[in-house]
Amino acid sequence: MRTALLLSGGMDSATCLWWVQKNHPGEIHTISIDYHQRHRVELDYAARLAARAGVHTHKVIELDLASIGGSPLTDAQLKVPAAQEERQGATVVPFRNMLFVTLAAAYAETQDIQDLYIAPVRDDYQAYRDCRRTFYDSLEKSLGLGATEERPFRLHTPFVDKWKTAVIALGLELGVPYEITHTCYEGLRPSCGRCDACTERIEAFMANKERDPLDYCIDISWPS
Amino acid sequence: MRTALLLSGGMDSATCLWWVQKNHPGEIHTISIDYHQRHRVELDYAARLAARAGVHTHKVIELDLASIGGSPLTDAQLKVPAAQEERQGATVVPFRNMLFVTLAAAYAETQDIQDLYIAPVRDDYQAYRDCRRTFYDSLEKSLGLGATEERPFRLHTPFVDKWKTAVIALGLELGVPYEITHTCYEGLRPSCGRCDACTERIEAFMANKERDPLDYCIDISWPS
Repeated sequence: MRTALLLSGGMDSATCLWWVQKNHPGEIHTISIDYHQRHRVELDYAARLAARAGVHTHKVIELDLASIGGSPLTDAQLKVPAAQEERQGATVVPFRNMLFVTLAAAYAETQDIQDLYIAPVRDDYQAYRDCRRTFYDSLEKSLGLGATEERPFRLHTPFVDKWKTAVIALGLELGVPYEITHTCYEGLRPSCGRCDACTERIEAFMANKERDPLDYCIDISWPS
Repeated sequence: MRTALLLSGGMDSATCLWWVQKNHPGEIHTISIDYHQRHRVELDYAARLAARAGVHTHKVIELDLASIGGSPLTDAQLKVPAAQEERQGATVVPFRNMLFVTLAAAYAETQDIQDLYIAPVRDDYQAYRDCRRTFYDSLEKSLGLGATEERPFRLHTPFVDKWKTAVIALGLELGVPYEITHTCYEGLRPSCGRCDACTERIEAFMANKERDPLDYCIDISWPS
């Protein structure tokens, strides 16, 4: 089986990569989107994850989201907490996930691949409409209808009903090298440990009674 | 009514702009996609059309399609006729229309606009799956489901069942300034008159027993 997978460099898509490798072995083609993200370091970790997993190819597609809307840097709402600030970027640029998936699907078609994996998790869809399976069902249909030739196209979201804590539990079982994933919104290594993304990550490891292999700028009392 | 319209600089979207202006008067926001097209001159004409129509705003969004697939310039099939060559670009980059519409919809959302007009014509959908209303129905639904907030979103294709000849007939009635549209794949002004796009354009004017206001590099026996 030949599959494509949208790899951000974060924990969820990394776990998805190891999950696909185990459950649907074959040629895996990973795709990262360089959207000039503030924490660009995640692109480096995506590439490292792809190399570690030994994927068939790793492709970076560029999309300058700044050209669509106003820049958060010029927005009056700049002084919001990190996670909201991050989401603000998505609010300034609606349909970000849809654009990422469509770009990945376009690349998948050029490679004659009919199965694309993405890793939204349940924690996401509580807040964001474009992380729900209802949306991805429709998008899968649109991609099928808009493809150059009439052929099956499948958009897989294996973790859409799983909480992040359960995804990490699965990843720990699968041996995902979380030390080469990136989460911190501040783009820091060691991670800041204070932004919403770091906080959520730390909580997910704590809930699994495991120590995160990442280094943090702050002291954390990991389970012994 | 506030509307957005995807304006390429070609005849169909120009006609659509004048049609919207007549049938749905109000604030019109035009959007062009700079995808590093070979005939970039069409972007200049899109801007001129927007100015002539007196639209509220004209936005250019950049999308580097080259980053998705291989370049036609390195493709073994380079020596194909102009129209197929043009389509080859779309084949190398699948979902081009879907990306354009999604980018335009993203911009529309930032402007709080819920109605987006695009101008596929019947001649297109004979050949291309992503020019059929079935596809746009699905895409409209996906855009509705993926939008930041739950609210109606309408993707209008007023010409989808009209042949190009009928669209031009309509445009002639509406007084569309076809002299500031661009069609030639070679990017020439005066137009080459030989490429598939020019040929199709000339035929559409001939069928309407009208003279095209554009200048051509070749002699053409227009109806007197």
